[in-house]
Amino acid sequence: MAPKTSLERPSRRGLFGLAGVLGLLGATARPAPAAPIPPAEARVSLHGRPIRVVDLTHELTSEFNLGPGRPRISMEAIQGSGAAVGMNLNRLSLVEHTGTHIDAPRHFSNQGASLGEIPIGDLVVPLAVVDLKARAAGDSDAAVGVADILAWERRHGRLPEGCCVAVNAGFNPLAPRTPGALARRQTPGFSLEAAEMLMKARQVKGIAVDGLSLDIGANVPAYPVHQAWLRSGRWGIEGLANLDAVPPSGALLVVGAPPVKDATGMPIRALAIF
Amino acid sequence: MAPKTSLERPSRRGLFGLAGVLGLLGATARPAPAAPIPPAEARVSLHGRPIRVVDLTHELTSEFNLGPGRPRISMEAIQGSGAAVGMNLNRLSLVEHTGTHIDAPRHFSNQGASLGEIPIGDLVVPLAVVDLKARAAGDSDAAVGVADILAWERRHGRLPEGCCVAVNAGFNPLAPRTPGALARRQTPGFSLEAAEMLMKARQVKGIAVDGLSLDIGANVPAYPVHQAWLRSGRWGIEGLANLDAVPPSGALLVVGAPPVKDATGMPIRALAIF
Repeated sequence: MAPKTSLERPSRRGLFGLAGVLGLLGATARPAPAAPIPPAEARVSLHGRPIRVVDLTHELTSEFNLGPGRPRISMEAIQGSGAAVGMNLNRLSLVEHTGTHIDAPRHFSNQGASLGEIPIGDLVVPLAVVDLKARAAGDSDAAVGVADILAWERRHGRLPEGCCVAVNAGFNPLAPRTPGALARRQTPGFSLEAAEMLMKARQVKGIAVDGLSLDIGANVPAYPVHQAWLRSGRWGIEGLANLDAVPPSGALLVVGAPPVKDATGMPIRALAIF
Repeated sequence: MAPKTSLERPSRRGLFGLAGVLGLLGATARPAPAAPIPPAEARVSLHGRPIRVVDLTHELTSEFNLGPGRPRISMEAIQGSGAAVGMNLNRLSLVEHTGTHIDAPRHFSNQGASLGEIPIGDLVVPLAVVDLKARAAGDSDAAVGVADILAWERRHGRLPEGCCVAVNAGFNPLAPRTPGALARRQTPGFSLEAAEMLMKARQVKGIAVDGLSLDIGANVPAYPVHQAWLRSGRWGIEGLANLDAVPPSGALLVVGAPPVKDATGMPIRALAIF
């Protein structure tokens, strides 16, 4: 049987990933590439053409704490008939909105689509990345505004139809925070004006942040962006990683959301391919 | 606050998905395509070239029952500070191996990689689909053997390096089964000989089934394929959907597995792109 796991041991993911990429493990041996690929990246081919894959997902651990009093993910080993042959099996308990995760419309609307009802065509979409790092470095509640969207469009052209607009604020949800900062939910996000522009003047399917909330911390717990955006039938993603490794324009976002019936959200595997 | 949800209401996913694709909903409006696209499929473009996306995932409901006595997914509404603004939020309790899901090496090896440790380059891989439907129609414990792999290679060439080999047995894990069939775990899968060939004579990263188990039912609870395959450091997927909509060769499999630290598996969003 498996020991009860604490989810709190130091991560081996980075090391293991690098070892896998470099072909040090017999189980995943392959020719070493010319240059090392970071653990969160991979190269594949489709239709004979090279494609890069970047993992936009934080490992989901019990260190994710999205608000005071909100329960963290926990894991309990289950003993069953498989114990005799060395099977390990756990029961997980988690709040839908932990780690890198999706907000379904149902999160703010009883009549809105649950996670299992979002069509797959809404979960593989063009990705536009807006860089907010400079402003967020000096303002923990920095917000993407209409001017930031227009500045992106001057450089990269009109937002592609059906895209997701993601904010790269350089935010690390796993960095230590004081209880005060946590209680105030200091986090970068979208302004209501920007969200309304993306709903009404563009064809945007989703918005995403590397922070903890689509809304900036100063707007919690009123949640004006959550209310407007999710109630319009669109989705959001919170807690993205590695946005520095993705081009501002031209990638596809793959939202690997397990389609849980009636769920208001769920931890996901988010990937960019380009 | 949200009512306690039962996860057992009839699914609206198919209807909602079709409506979304046909552009009937203002929230996701887009030009209607020339021909209707099934709800589990989508068309996108990358580098200016068209790509098809097929969802290989069953909606995850409490109807998934992978063995007698094994707990099903359950959901409990949480009341919190968001109730005043209409926020819905649930706590999920699930065994890692329910619905369309991944088996990490840790599932059968205490020292094996947990889900959070599998490098992203092992989760976006070429997909080879072996058709076992004719034999499985007459034998609920039909197994892919070495001869089936060789027959696939005669038609499509040698298995691509680093691929996933998936069995399309036409199995529906949500079809009604008698308690006896469930207890016996009648399900198609891989023979040990085929798994050993894919480990030793080919460069295969994963194996997948549309059934309930990598092992055929007759080999449960000894689990010889699970033991050999997962302990070699490779992963498996159980409960795939829609394999009829994917070409036998040429697609990429995207394993959208939330990277839960220390997990032995997890419900996923599995996609084929081609």
